[in-house]
Amino acid sequence: MQDKLIQEIDTIFNPRAVAFFGVSGLTNRLGNLMLFSFLDCGYPGILYPVNKNETSIMNQPCYPCLEDIPGPVDLAIISVHPDRVEKVIDECLDKGVKGAVIFTSGFGETGEEGRKRQQDIVARARAGGMRIIGPNCMGLYSSQSKIAFFPGMPGEKGSVAFLSQSGSLANMLGLFAAERGLSFSRMVSVGNAADLDVTDFLQYLGEDNDTDVIACYMEGVSDGRRFLEVAGSVSLKKPILLWKVGDTEGGKRGVRSHTGSMAGSGLLWDAAIKQAGIVRVENLVELVGFITAFTRPCMPAGRNIVIISGPGGAAISAADACEREGLVLAEPGEETVRELAGIIPEFGTSTSNPIDLSLESSFDVTLYPGAVEICGRDSNVDIILAIVTVLRKEIVEGLIRAKNAINKPVAIITLPEHSTFSGSMSSLFGTVQKEEYPGILRQLYEAGISVHATEQEAARALSSLCFYADHVSALKRHKK
Amino acid sequence: MQDKLIQEIDTIFNPRAVAFFGVSGLTNRLGNLMLFSFLDCGYPGILYPVNKNETSIMNQPCYPCLEDIPGPVDLAIISVHPDRVEKVIDECLDKGVKGAVIFTSGFGETGEEGRKRQQDIVARARAGGMRIIGPNCMGLYSSQSKIAFFPGMPGEKGSVAFLSQSGSLANMLGLFAAERGLSFSRMVSVGNAADLDVTDFLQYLGEDNDTDVIACYMEGVSDGRRFLEVAGSVSLKKPILLWKVGDTEGGKRGVRSHTGSMAGSGLLWDAAIKQAGIVRVENLVELVGFITAFTRPCMPAGRNIVIISGPGGAAISAADACEREGLVLAEPGEETVRELAGIIPEFGTSTSNPIDLSLESSFDVTLYPGAVEICGRDSNVDIILAIVTVLRKEIVEGLIRAKNAINKPVAIITLPEHSTFSGSMSSLFGTVQKEEYPGILRQLYEAGISVHATEQEAARALSSLCFYADHVSALKRHKK
Repeated sequence: MQDKLIQEIDTIFNPRAVAFFGVSGLTNRLGNLMLFSFLDCGYPGILYPVNKNETSIMNQPCYPCLEDIPGPVDLAIISVHPDRVEKVIDECLDKGVKGAVIFTSGFGETGEEGRKRQQDIVARARAGGMRIIGPNCMGLYSSQSKIAFFPGMPGEKGSVAFLSQSGSLANMLGLFAAERGLSFSRMVSVGNAADLDVTDFLQYLGEDNDTDVIACYMEGVSDGRRFLEVAGSVSLKKPILLWKVGDTEGGKRGVRSHTGSMAGSGLLWDAAIKQAGIVRVENLVELVGFITAFTRPCMPAGRNIVIISGPGGAAISAADACEREGLVLAEPGEETVRELAGIIPEFGTSTSNPIDLSLESSFDVTLYPGAVEICGRDSNVDIILAIVTVLRKEIVEGLIRAKNAINKPVAIITLPEHSTFSGSMSSLFGTVQKEEYPGILRQLYEAGISVHATEQEAARALSSLCFYADHVSALKRHKK
Repeated sequence: MQDKLIQEIDTIFNPRAVAFFGVSGLTNRLGNLMLFSFLDCGYPGILYPVNKNETSIMNQPCYPCLEDIPGPVDLAIISVHPDRVEKVIDECLDKGVKGAVIFTSGFGETGEEGRKRQQDIVARARAGGMRIIGPNCMGLYSSQSKIAFFPGMPGEKGSVAFLSQSGSLANMLGLFAAERGLSFSRMVSVGNAADLDVTDFLQYLGEDNDTDVIACYMEGVSDGRRFLEVAGSVSLKKPILLWKVGDTEGGKRGVRSHTGSMAGSGLLWDAAIKQAGIVRVENLVELVGFITAFTRPCMPAGRNIVIISGPGGAAISAADACEREGLVLAEPGEETVRELAGIIPEFGTSTSNPIDLSLESSFDVTLYPGAVEICGRDSNVDIILAIVTVLRKEIVEGLIRAKNAINKPVAIITLPEHSTFSGSMSSLFGTVQKEEYPGILRQLYEAGISVHATEQEAARALSSLCFYADHVSALKRHKK
């Protein structure tokens, strides 16, 4: 049964040919978004726009109906008026289509009658051996098979999967993450999840060799117990980062009209999520920061953190944030203090934790990497957090070398915008151009150095890394 | 006494001529940073590098000592070795200099002996009628008089002042804020604050007509009671946004080695700060978001908020965040719901709060502005929060028109990076180029629309706006 589910989803993610319903000869129509996105992503299979009034749409030959299409069709993307969805589903069943993404909304999210209609559609589809994604969803993206639901989604293969009840968020995440050097294996927007739901895809992604970390935006699931069971077993293999909304009364109201889900009690969820080894995040920006920490997680041996900073003020704020999140400011050993004193200037600096390299660290590019490596060798230190104002290339390369030399988690706090100097600043420091950031951030990301915009986000991400490490090792010990 | 202080600080902010000690003929030296920064900022007065081995530095004629300078010197910038600072201060006193910025560190932040030495310097300076900024500080920036402590600091005049115990933060804020369309009236980095401290400058900025909002990074003050008294009276005239660090044990340790201040008890501070009408922020990113909400604050009449969103998921997360911060999801009136139904599509949307405009809002640029204006007319609505994925120019202009038509706070959540489309996306939506963001964000800022990166930040900023409005009106009522 489980293998069957995984095979079904795998077929849908890797379709040989795709039919599009609700596409139009007019430009700038929402119904054309998906076809446009597949073309944009460079999908190598066959695209069949279905429209009886046109001969071709976006240079793809049109067919008046599915029946007339000569070869097999694995996936249908349906953007027709809600009243016409049932008829299209029947057409798909006759053709032997394996999966249908119903982009159309106006079903379960509108109330009881809509919920009944979507259930009928699912029953019919399932009886004919077809699976449904949606309705009221954006569908599927895979960097492996080059299918997409927005134009401009990253073409490069990545190892992060995003599972979402909101399609727009998947798009926002994709665009924002690309600016941060991240790319994805798969994205799914399940919408009302009348058939395949978050749990089904979670199970699939747990087995998916292209995916190392699973990020998830969730409003609610119909079967909370099954979700937690699946999540509990998947989280032992790869981290799950969950952005769960609808905890408050106002949020719950929004959930009902958005995807018609039941959000459940916030407190109960919070406890159950922890028990399943799931890491909880609060918003899109934080999700991206957490992804950078969890994609190639280097597990911390403990909660002792050292903070290394050029700007002194930010270091103190970071010390506050770390202590509040249950991390412990490490006491560097005598040898470490001596070695630090050997490389950093005497005045305006500090060799005790938080370690202050002073402004000199923006001029002397060896200071950050040197301090990271020295602290990394100290057995009193489990985690290193560096606050880097100016993302100079030499500093980034040095940090990556230092990270490779020690086997401990290294995180940095930086705002790429900080490094955007006007001409005069760059003549003093040597500049980083805006266009270079995604590349630089990608370098850091691929080296396993996480990047955060605020000290609170960094502290939460690193504390979550400790939580996850503890959870996995406790359960593994238990199993032995 | 108070008038004298303000006059002294005013002279220092508007010097007729400035002397630089510790400058070198060699390039890329930290000691040259200030001279370089004054030149970069376009300072119109006279610059006097003091160095007996050079005839000119950065094309400015050099003088072997202060005595040889023909005209008056109002300000001295001192970057010499700590052992030489006392001698330079004596030179300044002989010349009748009004203020000295001591960039040099190695004083109070190193321990008791250093603290004694800085006290001696201050006593000598005060006896001779000169005021000290620092030591261990970056000094002063004013967009009016074009003095600066970093190259690349914004040249345009703004109405935000930043008062900081960390100079690097002032630089980071300046660069980041410029990317967000903000500019500043003045910035001060007080460092160890051996003489002029945060409270002195707060008093000055309270009277400063160029400053509408005061942002402050603080580690500790020697006289907490006086700070709170001054802040309490300034906050009635203009908002104070305070980023106070050093609340935890680790943070306190960092404070001692950074500026040698005493951070005090976190809990006590928190309560006292509230009573003084001060708004507290947690980090640099949040500070910038709060500045956009508080620069031209349009005071909310109550806590009823309406959330308007294209991406449905983000709206639910925002509803959660707002309720957690004590805002109330407004119940739009019947007339509002009817009007909304008249402009937004039937399916995949919601006319109840959170209002979901669906993806169509990225295509039809009239939806956001229309919804904001309709909700703005509703007496059940005090505050409007719009979540905008794609910052299209037409949408921004429409939002500004709508904001001008209603007299209520309007905030938006957006990540500029979301709008950065690849070529294919832009052919569908019409694009916003990265270089355009600062300009677009400035337009929003100047129209009094605040911009936030996350829903939690937006909720905290808007809730703080309610707190500040309540505080000011309660005290004004009390005074009558």
